[in-house]
Amino acid sequence: MTDFTASIIVIGDEILSGRTKDKNIGYIADCLTNVGVYLKEVRIVPDEEEKIIDTINELRNDYTYVLTTGGIGPTHDDITADCVAKAFDVGISENDEAIKMLLERIPLADLNASRRRMARIPHGAKLIENSVSKAPGFQIGNVFVMAGVPSVMQAMLEVVIDRMETGQKLYSCNILTNIKEGDIADTLRSIQSRTSTVSIGSYPYYNDSGYGANIVCRGKNIDELKSIASIIESELSGIGNIEIGKIS
Amino acid sequence: MTDFTASIIVIGDEILSGRTKDKNIGYIADCLTNVGVYLKEVRIVPDEEEKIIDTINELRNDYTYVLTTGGIGPTHDDITADCVAKAFDVGISENDEAIKMLLERIPLADLNASRRRMARIPHGAKLIENSVSKAPGFQIGNVFVMAGVPSVMQAMLEVVIDRMETGQKLYSCNILTNIKEGDIADTLRSIQSRTSTVSIGSYPYYNDSGYGANIVCRGKNIDELKSIASIIESELSGIGNIEIGKIS
Repeated sequence: MTDFTASIIVIGDEILSGRTKDKNIGYIADCLTNVGVYLKEVRIVPDEEEKIIDTINELRNDYTYVLTTGGIGPTHDDITADCVAKAFDVGISENDEAIKMLLERIPLADLNASRRRMARIPHGAKLIENSVSKAPGFQIGNVFVMAGVPSVMQAMLEVVIDRMETGQKLYSCNILTNIKEGDIADTLRSIQSRTSTVSIGSYPYYNDSGYGANIVCRGKNIDELKSIASIIESELSGIGNIEIGKIS
Repeated sequence: MTDFTASIIVIGDEILSGRTKDKNIGYIADCLTNVGVYLKEVRIVPDEEEKIIDTINELRNDYTYVLTTGGIGPTHDDITADCVAKAFDVGISENDEAIKMLLERIPLADLNASRRRMARIPHGAKLIENSVSKAPGFQIGNVFVMAGVPSVMQAMLEVVIDRMETGQKLYSCNILTNIKEGDIADTLRSIQSRTSTVSIGSYPYYNDSGYGANIVCRGKNIDELKSIASIIESELSGIGNIEIGKIS
C-alpha cells in the first residue's frame, strides 16, 4: 500500500520572532494522523520570496502533499500567493469566483485594492472556500495554501482533508509509567527488535507529581499493536506502575 | 554590522504525529530575539538518521547557529548524538566528564548501559551542562544539541545563549487596532515604502471581543521605530481605535 506523506510550510516572520506562537502545526498534525497521512516534515520560513519559492519546490517534490499556512491576507507582507505562482511558473490574477466569495462578507463599496489582493489566485488553482472569513485559500497541484489565523485555517483544513487521498489510520496506544526512562530502555530496545510493524517511542516527563516515561506504540496493525502493548506491560510490571491507555 | 542568524531543528516523531505539542520553538524564538540573533528557519524532522544528518549539514552551512531539540535520552529512539557525529564526520564515545555529570544525579549502581548512552558525545564537542536533569547537551562547531523536555531545554538554552556571539536587539512596538486589515493595508504599504530600517507587519485577529489588526513594527533603530509608530498612529487615528504599546 502506498504511504501518503505530507509536509507543512509555516510562512511568517511573526512566528520566527516569537511574537506569535504557532497553533496550527499541532492541530494539522493531529488531523493528518487521524486520516492516515504521515506528516514527515515541517518548515517555518520568513516572509522572503526566494526562501518561500525554494521551500515549496523542494517539498512538493518530496512529499505527497504540502500544506502552507500564512501570508494570504490583504497587506504588503502577504506574499504567499505570488510565491506559489512563481514556484509553479504560472501567472496570477484576480479570480472572479474568489471576488464573489469576498463579496459574501465585504460590501462592494469596501472592496478596495488591498482587499481585492485576496482574490489574486495562481492560474490553474482550485479555490478552498472557508466559512469563517470567506476569503479563500487555494490548491495547485499537490500544494494547499491556507490562512494563518487558526480559526480560518481550521475551516480550510476540513476542505483540504476532504480533497486528499488518505491512507490507513495509524493507531496509537499510550502506556503511562512512573518508571525512569533509563530503567526501561534495555527492555524497550529488545521488544522493538521483535516487531517490524509497531514503532515504540519513549518520552520522559517531569512534573509536579513526579517523573517517569510515557511509552507510545504506533502501528497500522491493531492486533500486533495490542500484542506489543501487552508484552510491554508484562515485562515492566515488576518495576513500577503501568497504565495502558485506550487504542485510538 | 554582521547579522547573527539561527535555525532550529526539532527532532521527534512525537511532534509530527501530533501526540506532543511543541513548546520549545516559541520559547527559543523569544530568547533569540531578545539577544539580537535572528531566527530565520525552523525544521521539524522525524527520528530518521539520514534526514537528521542532511538537515544538520544543510542548516549549519546556511546560518550562524543551529540549535537542535530532542533525541538525546537513553532509549533506542534517541539517535541525535550519533547523527551529529556522522554529520561532522567525527567519532563518538563515552565522555568522562559527561559520566561525572550523570553521577551527580544517578547512583553508580543505576548507571546501566542505557543511561551511559546519554554520555556518548561526538569527539571535539563541548558539553552543555543543565541543572535540571544533569544529563548534558553538547556543542560542536556552530551546532548546539539540547534536550526536548522543555524544562531541561530551557536550562540548557541559558548556557547556549551565554556562548553565542549576539547582536543588537531588534526592538518591537505593537500597535493594537480595531480596524479591519483591508482598511489599513494601503496606508501601511505606503508607510513601509518610506522606511528601510523598520519592518511593518500586520496580523489580523478574530476573538470574542471582535476583530481588528495588530500592527507590529520592528527595527534596531529605536528612534526611527518610534517615529514610524507615530506616523502610523496619526494616519490611522481617524479610522478606529489605536493603542500603541511599549517598545520592548
